[in-house]
Amino acid sequence: MNAQAPDIVRAAYAELVVTDLAAARWFYVDVLGLVVTAEEPDALYLRAFEEYLHHSLVLRTGSAPALARLAYRVRSPREVDTAEAYFRALDLPTERVAAGATRGIGEAVRVEDPMGFCVEFFYEATHVERFTQAYHRHGGNAIARIDHFNVMVPDVQAANDHYTGLGFGVSEQIEDAEHLYAAWLYRKSTVHDIALTGGDGPRLHHVAFATNERHQVLHICDVLGSLRAEHHIERGPGRHGVSNAFYLYLRDPDGHRIEIYTSDYYTGDPDNPTIHWDVHDNRRRSYWGHAVVPSWYSEGSTVLGLDGTPQPLTSPTDPGEAAVTIGADGFGERVPDGEGFKLGHQS
Amino acid sequence: MNAQAPDIVRAAYAELVVTDLAAARWFYVDVLGLVVTAEEPDALYLRAFEEYLHHSLVLRTGSAPALARLAYRVRSPREVDTAEAYFRALDLPTERVAAGATRGIGEAVRVEDPMGFCVEFFYEATHVERFTQAYHRHGGNAIARIDHFNVMVPDVQAANDHYTGLGFGVSEQIEDAEHLYAAWLYRKSTVHDIALTGGDGPRLHHVAFATNERHQVLHICDVLGSLRAEHHIERGPGRHGVSNAFYLYLRDPDGHRIEIYTSDYYTGDPDNPTIHWDVHDNRRRSYWGHAVVPSWYSEGSTVLGLDGTPQPLTSPTDPGEAAVTIGADGFGERVPDGEGFKLGHQS
Amino acid sequence: MNAQAPDIVRAAYAELVVTDLAAARWFYVDVLGLVVTAEEPDALYLRAFEEYLHHSLVLRTGSAPALARLAYRVRSPREVDTAEAYFRALDLPTERVAAGATRGIGEAVRVEDPMGFCVEFFYEATHVERFTQAYHRHGGNAIARIDHFNVMVPDVQAANDHYTGLGFGVSEQIEDAEHLYAAWLYRKSTVHDIALTGGDGPRLHHVAFATNERHQVLHICDVLGSLRAEHHIERGPGRHGVSNAFYLYLRDPDGHRIEIYTSDYYTGDPDNPTIHWDVHDNRRRSYWGHAVVPSWYSEGSTVLGLDGTPQPLTSPTDPGEAAVTIGADGFGERVPDGEGFKLGHQS
Amino acid sequence: MNAQAPDIVRAAYAELVVTDLAAARWFYVDVLGLVVTAEEPDALYLRAFEEYLHHSLVLRTGSAPALARLAYRVRSPREVDTAEAYFRALDLPTERVAAGATRGIGEAVRVEDPMGFCVEFFYEATHVERFTQAYHRHGGNAIARIDHFNVMVPDVQAANDHYTGLGFGVSEQIEDAEHLYAAWLYRKSTVHDIALTGGDGPRLHHVAFATNERHQVLHICDVLGSLRAEHHIERGPGRHGVSNAFYLYLRDPDGHRIEIYTSDYYTGDPDNPTIHWDVHDNRRRSYWGHAVVPSWYSEGSTVLGLDGTPQPLTSPTDPGEAAVTIGADGFGERVPDGEGFKLGHQS
Repeated sequence: MNAQAPDIVRAAYAELVVTDLAAARWFYVDVLGLVVTAEEPDALYLRAFEEYLHHSLVLRTGSAPALARLAYRVRSPREVDTAEAYFRALDLPTERVAAGATRGIGEAVRVEDPMGFCVEFFYEATHVERFTQAYHRHGGNAIARIDHFNVMVPDVQAANDHYTGLGFGVSEQIEDAEHLYAAWLYRKSTVHDIALTGGDGPRLHHVAFATNERHQVLHICDVLGSLRAEHHIERGPGRHGVSNAFYLYLRDPDGHRIEIYTSDYYTGDPDNPTIHWDVHDNRRRSYWGHAVVPSWYSEGSTVLGLDGTPQPLTSPTDPGEAAVTIGADGFGERVPDGEGFKLGHQS
Repeated sequence: MNAQAPDIVRAAYAELVVTDLAAARWFYVDVLGLVVTAEEPDALYLRAFEEYLHHSLVLRTGSAPALARLAYRVRSPREVDTAEAYFRALDLPTERVAAGATRGIGEAVRVEDPMGFCVEFFYEATHVERFTQAYHRHGGNAIARIDHFNVMVPDVQAANDHYTGLGFGVSEQIEDAEHLYAAWLYRKSTVHDIALTGGDGPRLHHVAFATNERHQVLHICDVLGSLRAEHHIERGPGRHGVSNAFYLYLRDPDGHRIEIYTSDYYTGDPDNPTIHWDVHDNRRRSYWGHAVVPSWYSEGSTVLGLDGTPQPLTSPTDPGEAAVTIGADGFGERVPDGEGFKLGHQS
Repeated sequence: MNAQAPDIVRAAYAELVVTDLAAARWFYVDVLGLVVTAEEPDALYLRAFEEYLHHSLVLRTGSAPALARLAYRVRSPREVDTAEAYFRALDLPTERVAAGATRGIGEAVRVEDPMGFCVEFFYEATHVERFTQAYHRHGGNAIARIDHFNVMVPDVQAANDHYTGLGFGVSEQIEDAEHLYAAWLYRKSTVHDIALTGGDGPRLHHVAFATNERHQVLHICDVLGSLRAEHHIERGPGRHGVSNAFYLYLRDPDGHRIEIYTSDYYTGDPDNPTIHWDVHDNRRRSYWGHAVVPSWYSEGSTVLGLDGTPQPLTSPTDPGEAAVTIGADGFGERVPDGEGFKLGHQS
Repeated sequence: MNAQAPDIVRAAYAELVVTDLAAARWFYVDVLGLVVTAEEPDALYLRAFEEYLHHSLVLRTGSAPALARLAYRVRSPREVDTAEAYFRALDLPTERVAAGATRGIGEAVRVEDPMGFCVEFFYEATHVERFTQAYHRHGGNAIARIDHFNVMVPDVQAANDHYTGLGFGVSEQIEDAEHLYAAWLYRKSTVHDIALTGGDGPRLHHVAFATNERHQVLHICDVLGSLRAEHHIERGPGRHGVSNAFYLYLRDPDGHRIEIYTSDYYTGDPDNPTIHWDVHDNRRRSYWGHAVVPSWYSEGSTVLGLDGTPQPLTSPTDPGEAAVTIGADGFGERVPDGEGFKLGHQS
């Protein structure tokens, strides 16, 4: 592949199809405290406190829950053209959309990537007020900004290669001698803009938002308990081995998974070391050795193709991470000190 | 029972039998950061940063792990006599011990309580330096003080009545129409000095220590992960429904369970309302609806009687809390909003 | 004095006269997040999230800002009588008031204490919902409960003796060889229910409320900045030497001083050591050596007597703390390590 | 100026001359907890927990305290050449140094910039272990990484223009209609790699290190109090208006100023808005309206030129920020709500 890759800045927004906009509004606005930039009868445009682009999450009513698309911001209007040329050279479907095709977003190109996701590249976006210091609007759970996407794909190595071709750096990987089970890749100077999780795909695993501190993550759990809505908590809070972030996984009223994430690390130097985790190190997914709830490995959101119809799923040909680690990361399980597993190590 | 109850101040210290003092020292001193007040070839006397009595935990070498005794401080030397008379009137074994029977502790009385625990009452104790403001000694996980004991008993109602007879207030209970499954009772102005958990007993469920803030609890988890000792984490961290505290349960190298605990609430007013939790409210043990790991319900430490020999176990005649809630508090399980369970409520 | 002292539980509520109830509501409800239990055209009854008594703060409209009274809760209705007899034996004015004299408060006795403060003792009070776990109502600055009162008096030693006569323990004192400059006294198991600050008196120095963690204190500052109301911050946030608490002093729209306070220590044991701070140790007021803003030493709220009229002020005959430490606690001042000042020490 | 600017990654390390290496070791290693990568009789090479380059701070013994140089990392070895050419084209002194000229650093170029600072550009550096997840090594005050430099210059506008010429973005500025008083400029995706403070120059104002959360900043203050070394605290902790960061300024044993800094915001998008603060907005330096201690404006470290001799100082011709705001940002001063000052605003 010789076409030049577009200069991608970062993961910028996701559009989710929800079946009940009022329920989604309760979850994202009342519980999580995201700011409503704009509201339409069948759509909500939301952002976090630090963001000055129009939105980082669009919720749109539809008949079945789905990921409509993932959007990356590129460095200039010209890079939208570069992205279009890049995917055309890959012989993949592309579609140019006019400014306003998504409210608040300028002219863009949408593509269907090799894994089957609808991905948008844009530069222009409406600027809105940054509420970083509007602390009187921040609840105990203030969310600062979108952080990353995580997608489920049957062939992690292929998806990893697609993204490195697009110029992403690899921060961390879960692997053994034969397989790559998961990978984290970045454009901005954090651990990731996109993570790849092995499994039936294409599906959306989650969209992640960042807070500044951990107490803000804990407060979301407390609020859900006080509202008797604690079943929206799927996994965590805890500390990831991979990424070092403090995490919490929620499921929205449609079952879309949202991560609340804080305190990963700086990756902006050109020689940032890739960290390789052995799939048998039970600290990779929880640094505290906590079991991963099975739904976290097996469930994900349906993905719409460029034409707006649900993508069929392909299963991996290799055994998945959950299968090879059965028994290795049981909740509270005792494993001998220092035996049996390799540490995650830097390359 | 007409004898006068002794005026108990608070849960003061526990003595644990450990099989490997070096391993125990690693856990309590190196990882948890407790201060060593005194060290003998076969014993360690430990305290937390805010404590000015000689110790709140004694570790003594023995052939098998066990709880040697629980100790409460009483308000004056005379109350030691009152305690002795109280248990004699109950026709229970008592033993007067001289000052120094436990290093740092003055004259005391030891009794075997109706549930079979060896319990000591003392007033006099050696004062040592309070390290509340010796911040250069505090690690990221600074533990402030001992908080409470939790014991497993086959008949929670009987144990509850014994403790209310001793003048303890009841802060919270887990119950249904027929049974009392667990109870929290206090002398000092916090949620508890003693908690009662249903199960084969007498056994020690855990000894709890308090930190000032939650990040100190989280740091202990991070340290255990970094030492590849994450299997010492049994449950949590999380938020209790009962007590409102932020919790973490660890298992020491001998399997003794230690809780790290913070942010419960003030109970010092005479009409402090007792909170009654329905056993089917899956927020009672984790306010976030997290499943309780089975070992937490089923495992506990052997208890030595007044004569120093292990106490035989009696099983409950009633179904236990874990049994009646199987399926009700599954990790991440979805339950319908506001259906099926009553809220914990104030009396 | 041979009359028996009443059994006081704790500092319970203060009634402040404010000149603009709407402005006071903005400060206490909108900014600090106190819960409104009841509202009348000329009064607000407020409580913090953990409190189940009707209120811990009453704001009542008047022509000039003042402290109307301080109220302590006693252990039983009979102790109200004991309090009345105690102050009569001291030949001090007392007044019995019927239930409802203050909304939500039962039958009580009000006295004018030797320093000139109107002090109420009550037991009965209306119970209201405890919002400890109503986390969806907690902002980033959630205040848990009232903690203490601090008053300015010309003769600290005399006021100290009055309060020890009432059965208060002394937790900490600021002193030199000749003088007692300030004292902290407690009934509940914290550092204080009442603090005594030397100066023209009787005046109210501040009423203090407690949060569970420090980030909640910091959030109040951030909110005031975002509202361009940062001038309500008088001093802090910082760490006290005395009490070890993390503190913040605010001035309400009428100039009443409010402290937000967290993380002091347990004082409930009968032999809790009194800590003596040398008046020249510049860590006594700020453990970080920060200068105390002059207004903090010199300004306070007018106090109404039992008859509702402002009390005249008496000046100290001795030099005050600020005078003897001028130059000793300058903001950021360099002092030689370990020279010149004694450490605060335990008795 | 037509030479191409080098592609700078970020502020990478500073070398400070200290007069007493043992005292400096106490401050940076024992108190701040920086990791010693290497130690020589007259030098210490230190890094923070997250850093994998050899050092971010070098301390070297000398006869008088000074800043020896500031070092930026560039994106590749070739960019070292670009930097050299860039400064030669400016007719400024440059010096090529071999790998190892500074232990752990590869081949580099040193220049004397237009303001008189010795600045180094390098790419190659020895990799060392990243202790991000070595939590057992982290104290309560864990410092994650170097964040930025802040320098004092007599002509802020000229220095601002030099840095924008080098490809830096401008995140925030303090100004009025006539003057630019201070500026913050960045290469990495944070608020700054370099800040410019008006005053006699060239001098070093401070070097800043970042923590992940605010409690880690507070712990440093507590430790200094407990060591009776609180006079090392010059200003803060507090919240900056500019940068939004939570800050603390310390002075090391030689008087060098060190900032501990956390929670600024993401600036990595190409259209990141510059925030302009009016010099009269007293929230610009402290969002809580706290006065700035005078030494913070007036004192700074001597700077060595490329030849290793101290640079003479030039005074500004314009009035400085402190002068124009005297009385405007007094500690705890009351200013009318919403009057008199403009808000900091986005461009």
